[in-house]
Amino acid sequence: MATYIAPLRDMAFVIHELLRAPERLRQMPAFAEIDADLLDSAIAGAARFAEGVIAPLNAIGDEMGCRVDAGKVTTPTGFAAAYRQYIDGGWPTLSCATAHGGLGLPALAHTAIVELLCGANQSWTMTPILSHGIYKIVSQHASPALQQAWLPAIVDGSVTTTMLLTEAHCGSDLGLLRSTAVAAPEHDLPESPAYRLSGSKIFISGADHEWTDNIVHMVLARLPDAPPGVRGISLFLVPKRLGDGALNALTVTHVEHKMGLRGSPTCAVSLEGALGWLVGKPHQGLAAMFILMNEARLNTGVQAYSVAQGAYDAALAYARERLQMRVSSGARRPDLPADPIIHHPDVRRMLLTQKARIEGGRMLGYWLALCSDIETHHPDAAERADAADLLALLTPVAKAFLSSNAFDDANLALQVLGGHGYLRDHGIEQRVRDVRVAQIYEGTNGVQARDLVSRKILGDGGVKLDKLLTRIRHFLATQAKTPAMTALVGPIGRLADAFEAQAHRLADVQKTDRDAPDAAAHDMLQALGHLCFGYLFARAAAISLPHADDADHFHAAKLATAQFYVCQLMPQAFAHLEAARASAQGNELGGVKLDEARLFGAG
Amino acid sequence: MATYIAPLRDMAFVIHELLRAPERLRQMPAFAEIDADLLDSAIAGAARFAEGVIAPLNAIGDEMGCRVDAGKVTTPTGFAAAYRQYIDGGWPTLSCATAHGGLGLPALAHTAIVELLCGANQSWTMTPILSHGIYKIVSQHASPALQQAWLPAIVDGSVTTTMLLTEAHCGSDLGLLRSTAVAAPEHDLPESPAYRLSGSKIFISGADHEWTDNIVHMVLARLPDAPPGVRGISLFLVPKRLGDGALNALTVTHVEHKMGLRGSPTCAVSLEGALGWLVGKPHQGLAAMFILMNEARLNTGVQAYSVAQGAYDAALAYARERLQMRVSSGARRPDLPADPIIHHPDVRRMLLTQKARIEGGRMLGYWLALCSDIETHHPDAAERADAADLLALLTPVAKAFLSSNAFDDANLALQVLGGHGYLRDHGIEQRVRDVRVAQIYEGTNGVQARDLVSRKILGDGGVKLDKLLTRIRHFLATQAKTPAMTALVGPIGRLADAFEAQAHRLADVQKTDRDAPDAAAHDMLQALGHLCFGYLFARAAAISLPHADDADHFHAAKLATAQFYVCQLMPQAFAHLEAARASAQGNELGGVKLDEARLFGAG
Repeated sequence: MATYIAPLRDMAFVIHELLRAPERLRQMPAFAEIDADLLDSAIAGAARFAEGVIAPLNAIGDEMGCRVDAGKVTTPTGFAAAYRQYIDGGWPTLSCATAHGGLGLPALAHTAIVELLCGANQSWTMTPILSHGIYKIVSQHASPALQQAWLPAIVDGSVTTTMLLTEAHCGSDLGLLRSTAVAAPEHDLPESPAYRLSGSKIFISGADHEWTDNIVHMVLARLPDAPPGVRGISLFLVPKRLGDGALNALTVTHVEHKMGLRGSPTCAVSLEGALGWLVGKPHQGLAAMFILMNEARLNTGVQAYSVAQGAYDAALAYARERLQMRVSSGARRPDLPADPIIHHPDVRRMLLTQKARIEGGRMLGYWLALCSDIETHHPDAAERADAADLLALLTPVAKAFLSSNAFDDANLALQVLGGHGYLRDHGIEQRVRDVRVAQIYEGTNGVQARDLVSRKILGDGGVKLDKLLTRIRHFLATQAKTPAMTALVGPIGRLADAFEAQAHRLADVQKTDRDAPDAAAHDMLQALGHLCFGYLFARAAAISLPHADDADHFHAAKLATAQFYVCQLMPQAFAHLEAARASAQGNELGGVKLDEARLFGAG
Repeated sequence: MATYIAPLRDMAFVIHELLRAPERLRQMPAFAEIDADLLDSAIAGAARFAEGVIAPLNAIGDEMGCRVDAGKVTTPTGFAAAYRQYIDGGWPTLSCATAHGGLGLPALAHTAIVELLCGANQSWTMTPILSHGIYKIVSQHASPALQQAWLPAIVDGSVTTTMLLTEAHCGSDLGLLRSTAVAAPEHDLPESPAYRLSGSKIFISGADHEWTDNIVHMVLARLPDAPPGVRGISLFLVPKRLGDGALNALTVTHVEHKMGLRGSPTCAVSLEGALGWLVGKPHQGLAAMFILMNEARLNTGVQAYSVAQGAYDAALAYARERLQMRVSSGARRPDLPADPIIHHPDVRRMLLTQKARIEGGRMLGYWLALCSDIETHHPDAAERADAADLLALLTPVAKAFLSSNAFDDANLALQVLGGHGYLRDHGIEQRVRDVRVAQIYEGTNGVQARDLVSRKILGDGGVKLDKLLTRIRHFLATQAKTPAMTALVGPIGRLADAFEAQAHRLADVQKTDRDAPDAAAHDMLQALGHLCFGYLFARAAAISLPHADDADHFHAAKLATAQFYVCQLMPQAFAHLEAARASAQGNELGGVKLDEARLFGAG
């Protein structure tokens, strides 16, 4: 049975060596008191909780799933008690502002803790992970009366939170949303008009459970005078229980049967005149929700590689033990009946692929989390703007590139175990099923790609992309004279040039074919993900070179991983750019251009 | 709920237009009577069985799974009755020789029927699909006495069959096999020495069930005087029930809990002095087993794309109905509140990717099945030899490339449905879980890659590869003057050259680094898969060009699919060749070369 081992050394490498995070955080007044010890001890504590409390519940959560009886949901054995330990340990407060009773740790710490919790037990973490984003929405958009009523409980974790966005007929396109809100002025609070909400919502994580007495639901619905589309959606705070303890008119209709994440209570919910209070301005609910969404997208990427990490660890342990066949160049362990499969080049390739992409994911995820801290807290406006631009540009990349990598990586881990990986016993197939959803929720990876290309790259004429490319080229220039870096600098530089050229080409083609950016979006996102990983691996390599001969081989392994990534995985980026180029030309072989009905048959 | 629709038009395109199979089969005396109508009616009949009888059992099979009580396995409701219909319909006899009471249809027909059955219900098909390979082993290697005893029941399906190969400690490396056989001369049959077998086997498909009264197990075990390794493995026929109807000493210890294929009774089995008879020569069991294995590998590739086809069909139907957002260039269906997502370029990309790879899989699978018929039955020795070489070279490609594509395609189908795809309701997530195993069984895809590069390409100094490349280049030369084909001919020719160059490079590097072929094997296999698909799509396009304006757009869609594949997916092959090139250089950035223990940490 798989256990989870927090990758503390690798996390520290990114936080301290790659990002020099403590010293950069201390440039910001909000984090003037943050030192390396404080960060490390928060992370070490979360690691103990992840390893000791929730990791042991991961398999049983999948086995038992959740059930609903008469509208009350029961989660797997041990989940509720673990949540009790979580709030007793003060974990929900960690990244909330000190003004709200939190510890005021940076987003970077929050992201590292998300990694640890999700790596140990993604299903359990689904419910608590949401509260930080909801905290931000409520603290930034809710009225003082609502904040007074709910913020302390959100911060200390004595309530959990949900988002009620999706309806059966609308997911990516919230403009089609039908749930309604009608005024209930008899329940108005100061600056907080009350409404009765009606509608049906699906895919609600943590919609109900036995962990806490109350739950705060954030609900998107339309006011009676709402314009159609996304400009007519408002946000409401709808508690499970009202002030008098009575249940609100919100019912779990069923627990959804999912491929994975079976320990997480994902439910369909019916609102039947449930009482709620407007948060933020009428018709501007989506903007408020996007505070949460951007953080959730970044953290979905982090979550994804962390789930893959657990699969990788199990595969690595198996590959060291499992004996099959001899290495072609001669027995590595003549004392054993066969060689441990870790010595077989193809198994080494599978393990290195996982290792490289997980480490790349961590570098990108933490870098962007630090950008988020800089965007919010840095005293220098130019620094804030640059960080905001990088974060905006690369959030869709982190969400989609990391989640698609993670699924492939968990599958590679399964493959290392062969038939044994296909059995439930090793816990890897669960991780494959669990992590699959990361490509879907918080905006499908297709939505991310469209966001990246249309809004983030073409939308500002390439300003944000220029900032990234300038940063990458500047770094490569500093390494150009280091012979050991040549193998990395050349291909990364060529990829940066090729990506830029294709972005310019798309901007041109778009003038005559407005669908071209959407057709190329997936491949552009993949290519940019590779470029970011190449850049980050090159930085990691430059840091590691002076330590290449250290006795523990830690930095030597970073160098080898960087080379593997850049020379064996990154070439895929050029294939994606070729596909992006071709996609903009449409399908016209033989002079025939087909619409979808003809291309796919009559249907 | 998903239903299965047999892709008869696409199958006919490959059989009749691409391969001109009936006329080529009629060149062989064994198939002199085969005409198009006979082939088509067999396929149409199998399609009705697949659609009407076993497809409706696919979801319930996953839901119910199999259970074992006191060593007796029960399969999901309806499975046994469906098998009764299968044998009543005469399906098991179809591809068996007329001399054995079969209908004598070609391997091509068998492969097409495998596609239909697996596409409808992979779990159900797991058990009957094995019997054709076992039929071949028994009819070619068993003594007349054993043939007389068992062949009629195998041919008519009144017994099912299994293979007992894998043991807990050995899968890819059967040389480590421990099961033993000791002589039991009192049970000898003419030319068929009897043995008592002992050992533990795992991953046994169809090990027990309530479908038939008896089951024929083919078991690998060691004779007392066996040399170690793969040259000391013998093959035995071990019936579930002996001549007097008494149960043999073979017990199902448990049903294995798998990620998917839950309707298939995959079991761990214990042999406790079970009575069996030697098949073939002592110590030469693996060679006999490989008769089955090569057929099983090809059919695993076919099975895989057929499971993906079911997912694709569900995704396509969903994409036509689901309304979300407007296409960037303007509403396609202004009469509806949003556009059907099939019109969104990224959804179109996902669907076309699936369509192209499924169609490519069918072209490769049927082509190789026809090669198998030619290898066995063609009157011309040179034709037989060429077909045998192509089949040997490309069987590992068909197994691995098609199974990895199929998993990705089923996942793309799931992605088209977004969160709805992650629910069990649409049946796609089951297909993802089911088809995952195709990358593992019948030799993992890593084993296939090693077989391709070391044995099939480098092992004969490139003779088989030359035959393939010559065929491809010859075809491309015939198309060079057709303007509409230029977009295909150029890239495919460049890929053929690049692949050949990398194969030559590997042959050189191997002289100093004997592990280099294994390190490059995965990427070489992927690149060769792309080259084969490119070639087959170009052939399909050349056939389709004259029909580009046909009213039903069938051939125009083939042209568009070919262009999509060659221009948007095939470029990945060049990235794989680049990775293959780099892999042969090892990881030496900073002058450090790390062994596995250092590369992956101390462990």
